Amino acid sequence: MTSGNRIYLDNAATTPLSKEVLEAMMPYLTEKFGNPSSIYSYGRETRLPIENARKQVAKIIHAHPGEIFFTSCGTESSNTAIQESIVNLNCKHIITSPIEHHATLYTTEYLAKMGKVTLDFVKLLPNGHVDLEDLEKLLAESKERSLVSLMHANNEIGNLLDVDRVSALCQKYDAIFHCDTVQTMGHLKLDVSKTHFDFITCSAHKFHGPKGVGFLYINENIKIDPFIHGGSQERNMRAGTENIYGIVGLAKALEIADAALEEESTYIQDLKSYMAEELKKAIPSVNFNGDTLGNSLYTVLSISLPKTEKSEMMLFNLDIHNICVSGGSACTSGADQGSHVIRAINNDPNIVPLRFSFSKYNTKEEIDTVVKTLKTLL
Amino acid sequence: MTSGNRIYLDNAATTPLSKEVLEAMMPYLTEKFGNPSSIYSYGRETRLPIENARKQVAKIIHAHPGEIFFTSCGTESSNTAIQESIVNLNCKHIITSPIEHHATLYTTEYLAKMGKVTLDFVKLLPNGHVDLEDLEKLLAESKERSLVSLMHANNEIGNLLDVDRVSALCQKYDAIFHCDTVQTMGHLKLDVSKTHFDFITCSAHKFHGPKGVGFLYINENIKIDPFIHGGSQERNMRAGTENIYGIVGLAKALEIADAALEEESTYIQDLKSYMAEELKKAIPSVNFNGDTLGNSLYTVLSISLPKTEKSEMMLFNLDIHNICVSGGSACTSGADQGSHVIRAINNDPNIVPLRFSFSKYNTKEEIDTVVKTLKTLL
Repeated sequence: MTSGNRIYLDNAATTPLSKEVLEAMMPYLTEKFGNPSSIYSYGRETRLPIENARKQVAKIIHAHPGEIFFTSCGTESSNTAIQESIVNLNCKHIITSPIEHHATLYTTEYLAKMGKVTLDFVKLLPNGHVDLEDLEKLLAESKERSLVSLMHANNEIGNLLDVDRVSALCQKYDAIFHCDTVQTMGHLKLDVSKTHFDFITCSAHKFHGPKGVGFLYINENIKIDPFIHGGSQERNMRAGTENIYGIVGLAKALEIADAALEEESTYIQDLKSYMAEELKKAIPSVNFNGDTLGNSLYTVLSISLPKTEKSEMMLFNLDIHNICVSGGSACTSGADQGSHVIRAINNDPNIVPLRFSFSKYNTKEEIDTVVKTLKTLL
Repeated sequence: MTSGNRIYLDNAATTPLSKEVLEAMMPYLTEKFGNPSSIYSYGRETRLPIENARKQVAKIIHAHPGEIFFTSCGTESSNTAIQESIVNLNCKHIITSPIEHHATLYTTEYLAKMGKVTLDFVKLLPNGHVDLEDLEKLLAESKERSLVSLMHANNEIGNLLDVDRVSALCQKYDAIFHCDTVQTMGHLKLDVSKTHFDFITCSAHKFHGPKGVGFLYINENIKIDPFIHGGSQERNMRAGTENIYGIVGLAKALEIADAALEEESTYIQDLKSYMAEELKKAIPSVNFNGDTLGNSLYTVLSISLPKTEKSEMMLFNLDIHNICVSGGSACTSGADQGSHVIRAINNDPNIVPLRFSFSKYNTKEEIDTVVKTLKTLL
């Protein structure tokens, strides 16, 4: 899936659509175009695949189909969960962390600015993990019902949250637990029948599915109003004509990812460990951000280089060498303010962070090339 | 584009994706997959087409590119316009009509239920047109700034709003004008430089573009907060990784529609008029809803049949004969409560409404077949 001789190590930003997924989408991009809400056969032939997609997704995360709601992206899913928790679930207090994705951070900050919630940021340990003692303290001290919004794997440094412990704390204090699982869906086994989540989120393009589609899991025990009002699609929970190709593609991509999860996670973890070792050998001044070598998602390796004229130009020079890597997350790169995640865990102005993120399509040969290029450029 | 021998006369619900549009989308479904927000070349090769799409769209409606914001659908566009008018534009009063799309009706009713606005429904004339005198009365009487949300063409009966007069009234009374242009975009010439709109909306799948993508035009003189918070996409106005294929497809479809508008509108208007005449000849008891034969969108023909055992089963029987027609809009058909539009203009329980809606792919031969089948079935 690498076009030309490019090396793509930015799979946490987006992944190439897999051929099998595109094949599954094609009938709905061509002859099967009916509006899924229509009652005649054209409608039925697109409504059925949507319901099948819902069942496939539900089965993989051990949910009921009625708990899966297709949306346009992970960001919409998180906005829905957070905003409707305030409206419908009586959450007047939000606990989140300073290293969440902006879909969470900016939504919670906006709600706080509008005076709808009070907002607390949980402390981080030096390695970037959420301080669970501080989380419990915040929950215990809260006079209002809390919404806890913490991501499963950080999109920039890969740090993994202990979702079982957070879930248990939320249950102990009657808090709502929204977990941004955009980076882990399709990459780690998620089982909502074992770990109690109120909301989890998905973005299909993070695991070789299409852009423009995601889902929100809503625990069957909670009831919220729709975020987007209108037609009766998604059982009155998400209005708007269904993105049928997107939904079919999401389910197909998740099915493929889940079936190969064990094999691919071993393969990709191996790539990550290999790259870390090769970097240590080639560039002695390299530092590893957060807990990227420890309790961290296997797809993400986050490093820092000492700031020099050369390291500051690294992303651009890697690009010239056809190597795609990012400084932080793609969602924030337009803003050009650096990474809020790296700042939160290491506020040293004299470092240059680089994120490598891997997929099943990457190889050790590619990593050799990247490490060699990095060394040369420094 | 008719699969097998089916006759598809439900183009107001959705249209088949045109081959040229799919071709334009394909590179972004295959090799050009980069995250448009990424800074390296993979990002640039998807960011540039998005900005080109924005320019194409802006040019067609005579807007500035900075006034075009891509969204996931027409419904999201309308929700954004309506909800943020309340938050940011000090609109505490909404004037809408009882025959709006549910994207408007349910959003405004929800806001009223939450106590955020007062809601008035403008009177309709017997032919289903908005009573503009009543609109002015409501505007003049309002003690608060009003949001006027009225659709350009009704999606069930085709009635066209006099947008110039409504726009002038809104300006006279300092009201915000949101116009749901989902049915007219790509079908009628819209010129925002001549008619003052604050918001207009678009859904690509209504003119042979892809599902899951739309846009919201926001007049450059007004500033609203984003509806979906997160990453800095769409100049901080709509977060979430861009649906690049969808956006490229939308622009291509609109470009094709706009270029052929004159020719195709003549062709389709001719089909509509032909069908109306043939229906009158074949079925003397037929009635035409609203002003569908007058000041009405050329793509929509709405009729009523006297309720009998046979007419009540008409949609199902047409389906058996491979003819796709709808009773009302697709978005409400799941609810099975009949059409709120037809009820509002003619609350006669003894009629059965049918909506025929046409595209450039339909032919007079198809219409002959449909009229003949209707007659036989009655």
